[in-house]
Amino acid sequence: MPNYKNFHHFTEFAAARTKFKMGQDTPRDLLERCLENVQTNESHVEAFTHLDVIGARAAADASTKRYAAGTPLSAIDGMPFGVKDIIDTSDMPTQMGNSFFKGHQPSIDAACVRAIRQGGAIILGKTVTTEFAIGRSGPTKNPWNTGHTPGGSSSGSAAGVAAGFVSAAFGTQTQGSIIRPSSFCGVVGFKASFGALPIEGVHPLSKSHDHLGILAEGVQEAWAVLRWVSEVHSSQDHRGLQGPMELDSQPLPLRRVAFLKTQGYFELDQASQHAFEQALERLKAAGVEIVTPDDSILLKELCALLDQVPDYSLDLVSMDMRWPYLGYLDVAKEHLGPRFTDLKERAARLTREDYQHRLSFRDALRVRVQELEHVFDAMILPSASGPAPAGFVNTGSRTLLTYSTFIGNPAFSIPAMMVDHMPLGLQLMGFTGADYRLASHAAWVHDLFR
Amino acid sequence: MPNYKNFHHFTEFAAARTKFKMGQDTPRDLLERCLENVQTNESHVEAFTHLDVIGARAAADASTKRYAAGTPLSAIDGMPFGVKDIIDTSDMPTQMGNSFFKGHQPSIDAACVRAIRQGGAIILGKTVTTEFAIGRSGPTKNPWNTGHTPGGSSSGSAAGVAAGFVSAAFGTQTQGSIIRPSSFCGVVGFKASFGALPIEGVHPLSKSHDHLGILAEGVQEAWAVLRWVSEVHSSQDHRGLQGPMELDSQPLPLRRVAFLKTQGYFELDQASQHAFEQALERLKAAGVEIVTPDDSILLKELCALLDQVPDYSLDLVSMDMRWPYLGYLDVAKEHLGPRFTDLKERAARLTREDYQHRLSFRDALRVRVQELEHVFDAMILPSASGPAPAGFVNTGSRTLLTYSTFIGNPAFSIPAMMVDHMPLGLQLMGFTGADYRLASHAAWVHDLFR
Repeated sequence: MPNYKNFHHFTEFAAARTKFKMGQDTPRDLLERCLENVQTNESHVEAFTHLDVIGARAAADASTKRYAAGTPLSAIDGMPFGVKDIIDTSDMPTQMGNSFFKGHQPSIDAACVRAIRQGGAIILGKTVTTEFAIGRSGPTKNPWNTGHTPGGSSSGSAAGVAAGFVSAAFGTQTQGSIIRPSSFCGVVGFKASFGALPIEGVHPLSKSHDHLGILAEGVQEAWAVLRWVSEVHSSQDHRGLQGPMELDSQPLPLRRVAFLKTQGYFELDQASQHAFEQALERLKAAGVEIVTPDDSILLKELCALLDQVPDYSLDLVSMDMRWPYLGYLDVAKEHLGPRFTDLKERAARLTREDYQHRLSFRDALRVRVQELEHVFDAMILPSASGPAPAGFVNTGSRTLLTYSTFIGNPAFSIPAMMVDHMPLGLQLMGFTGADYRLASHAAWVHDLFR
Repeated sequence: MPNYKNFHHFTEFAAARTKFKMGQDTPRDLLERCLENVQTNESHVEAFTHLDVIGARAAADASTKRYAAGTPLSAIDGMPFGVKDIIDTSDMPTQMGNSFFKGHQPSIDAACVRAIRQGGAIILGKTVTTEFAIGRSGPTKNPWNTGHTPGGSSSGSAAGVAAGFVSAAFGTQTQGSIIRPSSFCGVVGFKASFGALPIEGVHPLSKSHDHLGILAEGVQEAWAVLRWVSEVHSSQDHRGLQGPMELDSQPLPLRRVAFLKTQGYFELDQASQHAFEQALERLKAAGVEIVTPDDSILLKELCALLDQVPDYSLDLVSMDMRWPYLGYLDVAKEHLGPRFTDLKERAARLTREDYQHRLSFRDALRVRVQELEHVFDAMILPSASGPAPAGFVNTGSRTLLTYSTFIGNPAFSIPAMMVDHMPLGLQLMGFTGADYRLASHAAWVHDLFR
């Protein structure tokens, strides 16, 4: 990351953890280093809505004792952690980025929060979300350039990891809310297979699209967190996230990938297209075969279908959002930004048959994607249509982000490119249920571009 | 219902509605008749946790105006209605039958409540539930004999309909919580296909088992409510409840049914077995062929598999319940009855692989049941293992109720038998997605036994 300036201070949890085990470092010391970063830079970055320094220190001391006794609870024991503020926490307010929930204090933790506490993670605070993860932006700035957006909706989670406040933070993705801010802030983003992780206690946007996921400094941390959560709390749809609790130290090289050169690709500015082509060249040089839609009729047809996705995806989301958002509009309209009225109107123009049509389209698309599983190791495309734009209103296009959210297959954003001194991610999409394989490929790509 | 004594006062909504349209009766007058029943008998029955007489009268007056103008909103406009107290209402407390939620006031309506309000239903109050729909019983008595349980968990909904307080009431079923109290109180119960109806805003027990459903005085009312809800609010899994908004006046005769004579059938006492056999004879006399496991290898194998269901079903439920109930046990253990600790311990003995095994077993069972769709019109069995027991602690066996909850196929309980001066229902199970066909058969059976 040669051009990373300002306040890049990755916590380097993986290295620290090795030292925890050898008695050369402690979770409490790591937390204190994070708190120094917070002290110095939070006023510029504004990643948090709430900090619990006392609670975090107590948790870090308990973790320190466990390492000293040789009994860490999991691979995430002692990991400084952030929780997106649409995810319930029993000891910190959960305010959804919206004034209707100002001061709202849930009585219990979301399932994922309870799980990471059981694993010994150190929850430092709640991170800024855009309004209900889809509306107006919060105050967070991009640590690479505080005149630029960090992306949304998991804004504080991305910026907090990039600024070294935490090693990892929960995010959620209903359109592009993990992959995009990861790309903009130069961190790893991982959205697991749809339904692989417990969503209980996460404020809902869309039953058909809501994913829990992670923003982290590395692929190893991202995998360790989500794999642990999936182990502690499974539920009905929860058949994903198989595989080891920690990534193998030998990552899996990519051999053959499908380049999803959709219409959305042409939203990229020239500099970003150039950076992406360079990245593909680097992959080729490392022995990866890149197959384009011009080379494959299967891929060409898939890309044509994907061009429908952004529209259809938002149709389903807007209809799912009728609960609870029509309820909020009934009782608290003045609290909600204009996007909620827009989406209400979008839903009102759609019928129940339209909804079922979009689901059927998705089923067919899933079959198409699954057909590629034995042909390609993964699919590749940029993580966003460019680097983080200047300003804070526009959080960028969602086109390239909706594909995997709609289909439900797993996706990573790997920091791999620099455009105009700002990071841009490489998006790797895998196959539903094969999250471990994708994570192992993602680790290989991350190593290649480091 | 020859032996129905005490305070049977069905509101007879279907007949009233015909008169609303002709200007011979009004929703406000119907509501006042319900309120008289409440006035006289609620102190004996204790069906409600909260009554909103002022709100109901205002809603009934608005409905009266719509009928006068010839513009009713739906087939349920003017219907006096109860809402089980684990379902959120913006204008009435929602207390889950548990002291931890004492006085809890949700900010918005559950999706199903918002839907029935849009259809013009008159919500008279919240009905008693057992603790979180699975724990200790509430105060409700059976209107047929106030020394007997109304059944659980939708206790107040069943008793309220039986006592003529409301024409229909929402219930939920995670094990047997609609079919059993319907059977015990001599009302119609309808649990639609799993996932057919929006569950948003209903307090969760088990993602893999929670069903919204209805307890009503007739099949027509039951269908009209759920079909309306499904029209107003669809969501991701919501592909069920197709068909007309109102049942055809010509119900569909049964021609060939499968008698699910499982081990559970032999839990019935002799008098109940005798009553059920008499009911089968009556069906035969009406031209229905009854196929037993002795006649069919498909059915014999199915019944053997069903014998596993009660155990496997509770395994899934206990594991799903880890959220939010482990959270409640963390922060409010003193509020929770012993069943929650028992289920916590059950879940702790099970592994993630056990969970997946139960889901795989269910998938295979679903295939078996679906195979019967072209062979049988429906499946038949008693709605409970006997009439409502005396006392209030034991709400009866769940064995015969778990089958359709686990498989997810639709089920009706139809009042059809009397045992020891108490009602017992006939349970009709249909095929997933074919809810309309089942409702039409259920109407035919109801007519036959009336």
